[in-house]
Amino acid sequence: MITLSELASILGCTVVGDGALQVRGGASLVSAGPGDIVFITSEKYLGLLGECSAGAVLVSPEHASGVVGNKLICDNPHVAFARALEVLYPRSAPLKTIHESAVIAETASLGEAVTVGPNSCVGEFTMVGDDVWIGANVTIGDNVRIGAGTRLEPGVVVLDGCHLGRNCIIHAGAVIGADGFGYARNGKSWVKVPQIGVVRLGDEVEIGANTTIDRGALDDTIIGNRVKIDNQVQIAHNVTIGEDTMIAGCVGIAGSATIGANCAIGGQAGILGHLSVVDGVTIGACSLVSKSITKPGMYSSSIRVQELAKWQKTLANLNRLDQFAGKITALEQRMNTLEGEA
Amino acid sequence: MITLSELASILGCTVVGDGALQVRGGASLVSAGPGDIVFITSEKYLGLLGECSAGAVLVSPEHASGVVGNKLICDNPHVAFARALEVLYPRSAPLKTIHESAVIAETASLGEAVTVGPNSCVGEFTMVGDDVWIGANVTIGDNVRIGAGTRLEPGVVVLDGCHLGRNCIIHAGAVIGADGFGYARNGKSWVKVPQIGVVRLGDEVEIGANTTIDRGALDDTIIGNRVKIDNQVQIAHNVTIGEDTMIAGCVGIAGSATIGANCAIGGQAGILGHLSVVDGVTIGACSLVSKSITKPGMYSSSIRVQELAKWQKTLANLNRLDQFAGKITALEQRMNTLEGEA
Amino acid sequence: MITLSELASILGCTVVGDGALQVRGGASLVSAGPGDIVFITSEKYLGLLGECSAGAVLVSPEHASGVVGNKLICDNPHVAFARALEVLYPRSAPLKTIHESAVIAETASLGEAVTVGPNSCVGEFTMVGDDVWIGANVTIGDNVRIGAGTRLEPGVVVLDGCHLGRNCIIHAGAVIGADGFGYARNGKSWVKVPQIGVVRLGDEVEIGANTTIDRGALDDTIIGNRVKIDNQVQIAHNVTIGEDTMIAGCVGIAGSATIGANCAIGGQAGILGHLSVVDGVTIGACSLVSKSITKPGMYSSSIRVQELAKWQKTLANLNRLDQFAGKITALEQRMNTLEGEA
Repeated sequence: MITLSELASILGCTVVGDGALQVRGGASLVSAGPGDIVFITSEKYLGLLGECSAGAVLVSPEHASGVVGNKLICDNPHVAFARALEVLYPRSAPLKTIHESAVIAETASLGEAVTVGPNSCVGEFTMVGDDVWIGANVTIGDNVRIGAGTRLEPGVVVLDGCHLGRNCIIHAGAVIGADGFGYARNGKSWVKVPQIGVVRLGDEVEIGANTTIDRGALDDTIIGNRVKIDNQVQIAHNVTIGEDTMIAGCVGIAGSATIGANCAIGGQAGILGHLSVVDGVTIGACSLVSKSITKPGMYSSSIRVQELAKWQKTLANLNRLDQFAGKITALEQRMNTLEGEA
Repeated sequence: MITLSELASILGCTVVGDGALQVRGGASLVSAGPGDIVFITSEKYLGLLGECSAGAVLVSPEHASGVVGNKLICDNPHVAFARALEVLYPRSAPLKTIHESAVIAETASLGEAVTVGPNSCVGEFTMVGDDVWIGANVTIGDNVRIGAGTRLEPGVVVLDGCHLGRNCIIHAGAVIGADGFGYARNGKSWVKVPQIGVVRLGDEVEIGANTTIDRGALDDTIIGNRVKIDNQVQIAHNVTIGEDTMIAGCVGIAGSATIGANCAIGGQAGILGHLSVVDGVTIGACSLVSKSITKPGMYSSSIRVQELAKWQKTLANLNRLDQFAGKITALEQRMNTLEGEA
Repeated sequence: MITLSELASILGCTVVGDGALQVRGGASLVSAGPGDIVFITSEKYLGLLGECSAGAVLVSPEHASGVVGNKLICDNPHVAFARALEVLYPRSAPLKTIHESAVIAETASLGEAVTVGPNSCVGEFTMVGDDVWIGANVTIGDNVRIGAGTRLEPGVVVLDGCHLGRNCIIHAGAVIGADGFGYARNGKSWVKVPQIGVVRLGDEVEIGANTTIDRGALDDTIIGNRVKIDNQVQIAHNVTIGEDTMIAGCVGIAGSATIGANCAIGGQAGILGHLSVVDGVTIGACSLVSKSITKPGMYSSSIRVQELAKWQKTLANLNRLDQFAGKITALEQRMNTLEGEA
C-alpha cells in the first residue's frame, strides 16, 4: 500500500484530489475498485469512467478536464502506469543463490548476485553477468555470454556460443541458437551444412515463450537492442533485426532477411529470405513479404473472413478473372466496331 | 484380452454375433486384424468393410444392417470406440510417488496419490490436487493451483499464480502463464508493462504440445471448461474462450479477443485482438478474423493452391481489378451513348 | 589449421594455386578473410569475388575460369563446402558418459559410447543405440527405440513407444509423440479418443527446434528417411511423409495427410488432413493445400503484400467481383441487342 502522493512522487506526476488515498493496485477500467489506479490514453475511453470505481486516474494534461475525482497528471499515462505496476506489484526478490541441483561447469564464471534455479545447467566457459536470473530446467551451452540483469525463464535453451545482451528477458521454452535449416543438394538428397555462426541479442531484448532463433550459418543472426518478439515466432539463420522493432506472435522470418529498425510485424506474418525491409515499416497480420520493401509505411496482403457461402462465390470469381478479362476485351472490340459503324 | 460380450457390457452395447470372441485391440479399417474391433460412423465407410479383417464392428442401429459378422450396436459408435480403447489399452498405473530428484517447495501442498516425475519442480505455496500426474522436467511456479486428476506431460511450464482445473491434460512443452506482449510506447522505444493477471483453465481442458497461453495483463486469460486446444497454438493475454470450443494447430489469437462457446477454429487461423466471436462459429483453416463475428455459422478467407503458372495469372489479374472496374464503367458509358443514338 | 592441399585431398578436389595456404575456416563472400575458404555455385556470385578477401574458392569446373587466385575445383562446391566445415569446425568430442544427475530406468538399455546430459531421463524398457548423444534436460519415455548415432538436443521430449532411426538430429524443444488431436463428438462436448499409435522416424531425419510430431491415433505417424523438418512445424497424427522431403518453418500438416517423397513445403504453408500429395511437389510459402495433388510441380496460393491503401482497394474490388460479373453479362446482352439492330 502506498499513498497517491507517494506514487505521484515516484512517477513524476501531479496529483489532483486526495493525495492520502491508499493505492492497492492497478486495474482495467472494467474491473477497478476504489483502491486501484487506472489510466486513460484516449478521449474515447473517458466515457467509460462514469461506471468505473477506480480510486484515481492517470491522465495526460489534454484529457485531464474529462476526469472527475482523483487524478495523476503526466505526459505519458501508459508509461507511467507501467512504472506504477512495477511499484505496486514488486517481483519477489531473487534468491541470488545457485540451487544445489543445478549443474554448473567448473570453467563457467558467474557474476555477483546470480540466481540459478533447480535442475538448470550452465556449460563450459560460459560467462554469466551480475544479477542474471535463471529459472528452473534451463539449459545453457558452452561459451555462452549473458549480460548483466538478463532473465531466463524456465525451460529456456541457449546453445553454444550465443551472446545475450544486458537486461534481456527470454520467456519459457524459447530456444536460442539451434541450427539453421541449411542443406546442400546432393542428387535427390540433402547434405547438412554445419551451422557455425551464433545468435547475438542486443540489450533489453525480450523473446517470447517457445520462440526459436536459429544460429547463423556462417555469419551470425543479429537481434538489435530493445527488439521485442512475441511467442511462437521463428527467426531463421542470419536474419538481422534493427533496434526497437516489434514482432507479434507466430511470425516466421526466413533466412538472411534483414529487417529495419522501428518496424512492427503483425501476427502470423511471413517474411521470405534474402530480402530487406527498411526502417519504419508496418506489416499487417497474416501478410506475406516476398520482395524487399524500400519505403517506410504500412503493407498488407491479408484477407478477412466472410460467411462461407459468400467467400466461396468470391473464390469462384477469383478463378474466373481471366475469363472476365477476355470478356471485357471482347466487349471493347465489339464496341469499337459498333462505334465505327455509328 | 477381453471377450466381445464383456466389452459390450462395459460400453452398454448390444452384441450381435460371437460374444465369446477374444478382443485384443482397436484398429483402423485398413489395418484391423481378427482380434481387433473397428467402428463405423457413416454409410460411406460400409464399403470398406468387405476387405476389413476386424473381429467386430461398432455400429449405430441405422447402419447395422450393412455390417456382416460380429457387431456391437450402440447410439454413438465413435464415443463407444474411444471408451473401448481406454479399456483395451489401459495406461500404466501412475507411480503415485515423488521422484527423489524432484524439487518441491516446503510450502507447496500435494494432494493424495500425486505423481511427480524426475527433475520436476513445484514452487512456493502451490497447491496440487489429488491424483495429479506430473511428468519429468516439468516446472511449476509459485502460488499455482492444479485441480484433481490433471496431467502435466514432460517439459511443461506453468508460471506463478496460474489456476488449472480438474482433469486437464497439458501436453509436453506447453507454457501456461508467460508474460503477455504488452508495452507502452515511449518515443521510439517500448516500455514493458508488467503483466499482473494470470491464466485460468476450466475443467477437462486439453492443451497441445508446445502451445503457449499468456497470463493476463491486468485481468486474467480465461479458458472455459472442456476447451480442447491443439499443438503450437498461441493464445495472447486476456483472451477468453467459451466452453467446449475446439482450436486446431498453429492458430494465433491476439490479445483480449473473446471467443464464444462451441466454436471450432481451423488450423493456422488468425484472430485479431479486441474483438468478439459469438457461440457456434466455425472458422476455416488459414483464415483471418479481423472484425467481430455476431452470427453463428461458417466463415473462411482461405485460398487453395493452384499450379504456380495459373496462380501467377490469377495474381496478375488481382492487381488489375481496378483497371477492370474502370474498363467496365467506360464500356457502360459508351453503351449508354450508343443506345441513346440507336 | 590445415593446408589447402590437405583439405583438397579430404574433399576430393583439384587444387589450383597455393596448396600450402593455411586454411583457418569457412566464411561467406562478404566476411571472408585470407584464411577462409568460400564457395561459388552460380555465375551470378562471381562478380562478388572482386571484393572478397578469401584465401581460396570452392568452384565447379564450369565456373572455375571466372575465379582468380586459389581455387578448389569439384563437381558440387556446396556439398564440398559442407564437408569442409565439418573438417574445419570439428564438434567437441562427446563425453560418452552418463551424467550423475541423469535418471535412467533400470530396464533401459544403453549402447556403446552413449552420452546422457545432466537432468535427462530415460524411461523403462527404452533402447538407446550406440553413439547416441542426449543433451541436458531431455525426457525420453518408456519403450522408446533410438537408433545409433542419433542426437537429441536439450529439452527434447520423446514420448512412450516412439521409434527414432539412425543418425537423426532432434533439435531443442521438439516434442515427438504427444497425443494427436482426436475427439469423438458427444452432444455439444467432445470425448478424448486414446491415441494408441506412435511416431516412427526413419534414418538421417532432422527435426527442428520446438517442432511437434504427434503419435498416431490407431496406426502410426511415419516420417521417411532423410526427411528434413525446420522449426515450429506441426505434424498431426497419422501423417506420412516420404523420403528426402523438406519442410520449412511454421508449416502445419493436418491429420492423416500423406506427403510424397522429394517434396519441398514452403514456410507457413498449411496442408489439410486426409489428402495425398504425390512425389516431387513444391508448395509455396504461406499456401494452403486443401485437396489432393496428383501431379508433380509447383503450387501456390500466396499473395504478397502491397502498400496498405492499394491493398484495401484490391480487397474492395475482390468483394465486388460478383457485381463485375453481373455488369459484364449485362453489357454483353446490351451489345447483342445493339449488334442485332445494327
